[in-house]
Amino acid sequence: MNVSTQAFDMTQLFAQGLPAPAVRFGGFPKYNFIGGHNDPTQIPVDALIEAITAIMRREGPNLAIYNMGHGPQGYGGLREMIAKKLSGHRGIKCTADDVLVLSGSGQGIEMVTRLLVNPGETVLVEEFSYGGAISRIKKEGALVVGMPLDEDGIRPDALATILEDHKQRGVSVKYLYTIPTIQNPTGSIMSLARRQEILALACQYGVPIFEDECYADLTWAGEAPPAFAALDPKQVIHIGSFSKTLAPALRVGYAVAEWPILSRLIAMKTDGGTGALNQMVVAEYFGGHFESHVTNLSNVLKDKLEVMIDALDKEFGTAIEMWRPAGGIFLWLKFPDAVDTSSMLKAAGEAGIAYNAGPEWACDPGSAKPYMRLCFALPSKEDIRAGVSALAKVCHEQTGIPERSGNVDRSGS
Amino acid sequence: MNVSTQAFDMTQLFAQGLPAPAVRFGGFPKYNFIGGHNDPTQIPVDALIEAITAIMRREGPNLAIYNMGHGPQGYGGLREMIAKKLSGHRGIKCTADDVLVLSGSGQGIEMVTRLLVNPGETVLVEEFSYGGAISRIKKEGALVVGMPLDEDGIRPDALATILEDHKQRGVSVKYLYTIPTIQNPTGSIMSLARRQEILALACQYGVPIFEDECYADLTWAGEAPPAFAALDPKQVIHIGSFSKTLAPALRVGYAVAEWPILSRLIAMKTDGGTGALNQMVVAEYFGGHFESHVTNLSNVLKDKLEVMIDALDKEFGTAIEMWRPAGGIFLWLKFPDAVDTSSMLKAAGEAGIAYNAGPEWACDPGSAKPYMRLCFALPSKEDIRAGVSALAKVCHEQTGIPERSGNVDRSGS
Repeated sequence: MNVSTQAFDMTQLFAQGLPAPAVRFGGFPKYNFIGGHNDPTQIPVDALIEAITAIMRREGPNLAIYNMGHGPQGYGGLREMIAKKLSGHRGIKCTADDVLVLSGSGQGIEMVTRLLVNPGETVLVEEFSYGGAISRIKKEGALVVGMPLDEDGIRPDALATILEDHKQRGVSVKYLYTIPTIQNPTGSIMSLARRQEILALACQYGVPIFEDECYADLTWAGEAPPAFAALDPKQVIHIGSFSKTLAPALRVGYAVAEWPILSRLIAMKTDGGTGALNQMVVAEYFGGHFESHVTNLSNVLKDKLEVMIDALDKEFGTAIEMWRPAGGIFLWLKFPDAVDTSSMLKAAGEAGIAYNAGPEWACDPGSAKPYMRLCFALPSKEDIRAGVSALAKVCHEQTGIPERSGNVDRSGS
Repeated sequence: MNVSTQAFDMTQLFAQGLPAPAVRFGGFPKYNFIGGHNDPTQIPVDALIEAITAIMRREGPNLAIYNMGHGPQGYGGLREMIAKKLSGHRGIKCTADDVLVLSGSGQGIEMVTRLLVNPGETVLVEEFSYGGAISRIKKEGALVVGMPLDEDGIRPDALATILEDHKQRGVSVKYLYTIPTIQNPTGSIMSLARRQEILALACQYGVPIFEDECYADLTWAGEAPPAFAALDPKQVIHIGSFSKTLAPALRVGYAVAEWPILSRLIAMKTDGGTGALNQMVVAEYFGGHFESHVTNLSNVLKDKLEVMIDALDKEFGTAIEMWRPAGGIFLWLKFPDAVDTSSMLKAAGEAGIAYNAGPEWACDPGSAKPYMRLCFALPSKEDIRAGVSALAKVCHEQTGIPERSGNVDRSGS
């Protein structure tokens, strides 16, 4: 038995098709314009302590029980708060019984794909969409087909063509994934008329709508047309999140669907429930402070957006085109067609700048080379200005664009 | 476009191979002897409020950042606490860099299986083992083969035979799953000599050991031989949990492995991190109270076990055989061979009693029909006594056993 263990290499036994290994986390870059982070100054620390203290005094002993004894759908107080919020703000008729608490809405994206898609089957996704959704849907084995967008969201004419084409070819479309309210990355809000057109097509072709409203509570106007789930609950699976409205580190989201769907999603949620303190604090704090918190946060975010737009105007001028978002935490912009934003990632990283290159946020990566997504919630206004300036410098060095930044004429440099 | 949506039935589009739908949660039975719940009276509510308040004052704003800015391995303060605990209590030489925070150890079971097992490949599991592990490993497509147990854990002679047999047949064993310290369900602690024998076989045949120590901190003696990961880190993936030592609703566990393994597990953890408040409270509270808390909790649990053993003695006498656990929250017992504990589940449920029938906790369900697992952490001592009495009544009605309970001669009833 004197076999040397030094010869043992567990990596030789790895299964096929694993994702690439993670690299050691080395901290954030100085100018961090990626990720769904929020503004650290807007975490209501005292109010959260107060909320946790109150709910722990009432329900603390129930931490000894999985899901605090409320069953696999999650903490009842949170589900009631969610149902009230969705009824009041999004027009969705639902009760706590229709809600499943998720460990972030990304868990919902994985589960809904597994629910509906056998490997190789087709899912429609907005041509530019949340990179984490595109990668999760592909990871589950789905074939992702892009739906063209305009400033109002999915183009009905283009969707009709896609659906008819798939029907003619006998290819089943298993679901349509949309972020109708503060589309990621374009920041648009789909109008009610547009929602009705898209829903009519989904009904006509028998395609479920999977609606992701994780940004829907953060609109500058403070409101939005009713959710798809409000228009036709039979056709829709709805998910949302408290990552954007309160704090992403909490990992609390939710799904709403009719029972034949929800009962399957519950069965697929094998994590033993979403962390209890996080569920409790969201329920307790947002039970009393939802409107005031999101109104204030939206104002703070809009201020930061204005700083970023101003800095981009100054630094890039007419060299870029911006989609002015109607809410949320990100800005989508386009460089001239010849620019490939992926090619600048390395130099930007060396200058302490992180951004999403367009291809990461596109169903067809090749179609999005000149695009870029910049998130503005985390960095301070000073870092937004300095980071955009640093980005302009890198961009000029790498692509010759912009030729002029504010008072700096780079063309001769 | 006047297609009726009433005709739409999303369930017709479901993917193949889904788990069965969940049933509506209807609350717990009166005598709840299942699940990894803890004793609600032992949740240190005031101390947890104090811990949360302190850490929120220091780090609250970081909730705005995924994983509080500590990267995908999880909150640094928690990983440091875990590394210190594992070095001090389990002999594992590790630092915070070697730890991945999990959303419960069940997440680790799923990920390790995906890491090592292609569908149809073989995993060895203790013949009686955690039902949630057996089901998760099977769900990932593995073929589960049982390793015979004695009172000291896995039998080396039987393991040698199994490994040699697989080798002769050219079948690769992808890993060996063991709960060496407070085995679930037998409650045994594997001796150091036995660990060394099992490890030598694993090394000889090149089989990784996947070690689950979620109960290891709750031993009546307050100690246990070193973990497998302490004996040979190259051969071992180690997981543990705070569900049993603090509270299951928090959903905080951890994995420890060398970087080539850990970097893959990190890449497979797609949940955006484990909930922050739960990570923070475990780090802060157990940073100062680990020894005192687990010592006190173990004493409370041992008292409840004695009540359960006493009640079983009184109610069942020699009709059952009990494995007296060396720690933990459950008791494994055996009825005469003719009894099938699964057949009493329905009647017991109607009498307000829930227990694990042996087949749920066995690699070969047919081999475990006369066995039963009873958890004793959640119910009060009064409910333990009353529930065991109610169980004896149901059992007698269903099987004729026991003939006599305490002063009650049931044989003529």
